[in-house]
Amino acid sequence: MSGPRTWRGKVFIGVSLDGYIARSDGGIEWLSDPPDDPGHVPGHRGPNPPAGYEDFMVTVDHLVIGRGTYEKVLTFGFWPYGAKQVVVLSTTLARDHDERVAVARNLPEVLGVLDDGAAKGVYVDGGRVIQEFLRADLIDELIISIAPVLLGGGLPLFGRLASDMRLTHKGTSTSDTGMTSIRYIVTR
Amino acid sequence: MSGPRTWRGKVFIGVSLDGYIARSDGGIEWLSDPPDDPGHVPGHRGPNPPAGYEDFMVTVDHLVIGRGTYEKVLTFGFWPYGAKQVVVLSTTLARDHDERVAVARNLPEVLGVLDDGAAKGVYVDGGRVIQEFLRADLIDELIISIAPVLLGGGLPLFGRLASDMRLTHKGTSTSDTGMTSIRYIVTR
Repeated sequence: MSGPRTWRGKVFIGVSLDGYIARSDGGIEWLSDPPDDPGHVPGHRGPNPPAGYEDFMVTVDHLVIGRGTYEKVLTFGFWPYGAKQVVVLSTTLARDHDERVAVARNLPEVLGVLDDGAAKGVYVDGGRVIQEFLRADLIDELIISIAPVLLGGGLPLFGRLASDMRLTHKGTSTSDTGMTSIRYIVTR
Repeated sequence: MSGPRTWRGKVFIGVSLDGYIARSDGGIEWLSDPPDDPGHVPGHRGPNPPAGYEDFMVTVDHLVIGRGTYEKVLTFGFWPYGAKQVVVLSTTLARDHDERVAVARNLPEVLGVLDDGAAKGVYVDGGRVIQEFLRADLIDELIISIAPVLLGGGLPLFGRLASDMRLTHKGTSTSDTGMTSIRYIVTR
């Protein structure tokens, strides 16, 4: 990549209160199909509420995901990304495995694909990919939706950083299902 | 302890977005003295907003803290707990070390002190003590205030659990300093 970055890196993800994006076996039923609980306070949109998934997706033209997320998506039975360019960051997936995705072996290759595609909004998804992008200072905003459950273990959303990353809080909303969604931009 | 538990176990704590209550060296300046950021959205009290610290403290008559929290509190230069009974869970602190606290060697001893004191509301504080109380199913509600920062490491708030712990979301509010506070009760 030459010159300043022309795209915004974005995270949109659900997480348990204790910071896991999936169980150790990849299970996300606690997020996708939570138990009914009429005791949750009714959902509320605070000032400047974070976008929901569909409105968020309008703001991105590329996705970068890891092999774990890619394989999870294949189990859905449909391809959720439409015509958006999907880059799978994987050292092992065959490059011609799936014509719907570009395979990148490392971060520089990902950046090359994004450059070639004149990316503007990049949805970065999956724990390890998010962590790698955060460490490389390639994330500009995060919408984190906190599910009302403690899992006690699983795949963590966040990992080690070389230094603090300050965030600016841009809005919070809640849902009838007990989720609290918070939007941050990375403070620079 | 004989018979059903007569007190409610409560957590009220600040945490970084990546789940740490302090740096590895105990530092909490990111929480107690956060940098000014006029970019945060103005604070907003949603429906049924969580109590602030002073209102929360009115609801507790006992505290249970670990040695780390106890020693942190000693650095404050004042004793923040007034006449509330403080129990320090520590295997090493001398029992007659400080007349303001009761020292308990293990969880059964803590429960004995709470029983003797006819506890009604118990503020459980400090990462390891909170984790031990959660694992023993002794926590009934949590007010978690999420600070707008990623630390990348430190002392984690949550730990391993034998099974999921479902939570009921009772309210969320935000502050001008970018904090999002969420109140949960443990679903039973």
